[in-house]
Amino acid sequence: MSEKKRFEVIFEGVGTSSGKMRNDIHVKWPSQKEEFELATDEGPFHGGDGTAPPPLALFTAALTGCLMTQIRAFSKRLKIPIRGCQVSARLHWMGEQEGMEPYVTGAVSFDLDVDLDTDATMDDQLRLIEAAKKGCFIEQTLAKGLVVGHRLKNGDDWVAA
Amino acid sequence: MSEKKRFEVIFEGVGTSSGKMRNDIHVKWPSQKEEFELATDEGPFHGGDGTAPPPLALFTAALTGCLMTQIRAFSKRLKIPIRGCQVSARLHWMGEQEGMEPYVTGAVSFDLDVDLDTDATMDDQLRLIEAAKKGCFIEQTLAKGLVVGHRLKNGDDWVAA
Repeated sequence: MSEKKRFEVIFEGVGTSSGKMRNDIHVKWPSQKEEFELATDEGPFHGGDGTAPPPLALFTAALTGCLMTQIRAFSKRLKIPIRGCQVSARLHWMGEQEGMEPYVTGAVSFDLDVDLDTDATMDDQLRLIEAAKKGCFIEQTLAKGLVVGHRLKNGDDWVAA
Repeated sequence: MSEKKRFEVIFEGVGTSSGKMRNDIHVKWPSQKEEFELATDEGPFHGGDGTAPPPLALFTAALTGCLMTQIRAFSKRLKIPIRGCQVSARLHWMGEQEGMEPYVTGAVSFDLDVDLDTDATMDDQLRLIEAAKKGCFIEQTLAKGLVVGHRLKNGDDWVAA
């Protein structure tokens, strides 16, 4: 029997409101000692200044890039060589609003179309995509579902929110 | 009874592999006629050149920025004024690997700590966060779960993958 290894992947972020709707988000990957400066904003229609992409644009890039990264990483591991990879994504959400109440949102469907530049058989390509789906942190999180935990600062304490 | 409105939010992305592990992702929000150039890469440890943040850094910023954006949007709508907002995020995933097989991933927990600069009562602050959670497209998608659809290009056709 082969040995089972487990590894942890932890990202941290600190977001600070800056412009009208802009948020500057300092993201750390402590175990790799990597840090990234990211930002989100909204366009003028939603009260922002359009200085950065909206959060859902970052999310679309994250999901698309995550699958692509795993396809390329596992291409080597599974010895299914590819010369290149193009992925077209379509992410569909909806919102519902009663009168002037805050709206309530939900996902309708997310679809990723994969086009590999490769001489591999379709069976091998399908095997590569199957491995990439299982290794894609974002797809697996979405598939299983997860309730995000929240706390709110109250003076020097934190309360569940 | 107040009227119920429904609206659709659709983002599209086209990712193209470029550097060793870099992906360039052109993201469109067609209904708003907005387009964004985004990219992901991996650091040298994972075979990349570190020219852009990894997908999970974009994901961390997207989740953090999404909640913050809704807090600020709903602050106006609910008349719970805030001067500023800071959110600390911790996203924890794990991976499991048997021998040299491709690894299998999953989320462990995502936590967002919210610190509002405001004179509002704790009750009002909690009401604001509750609305922001329901309006946050990413949190709602995570909470309900979603299986991403995939197709693989086969000549001029697409097959389910």
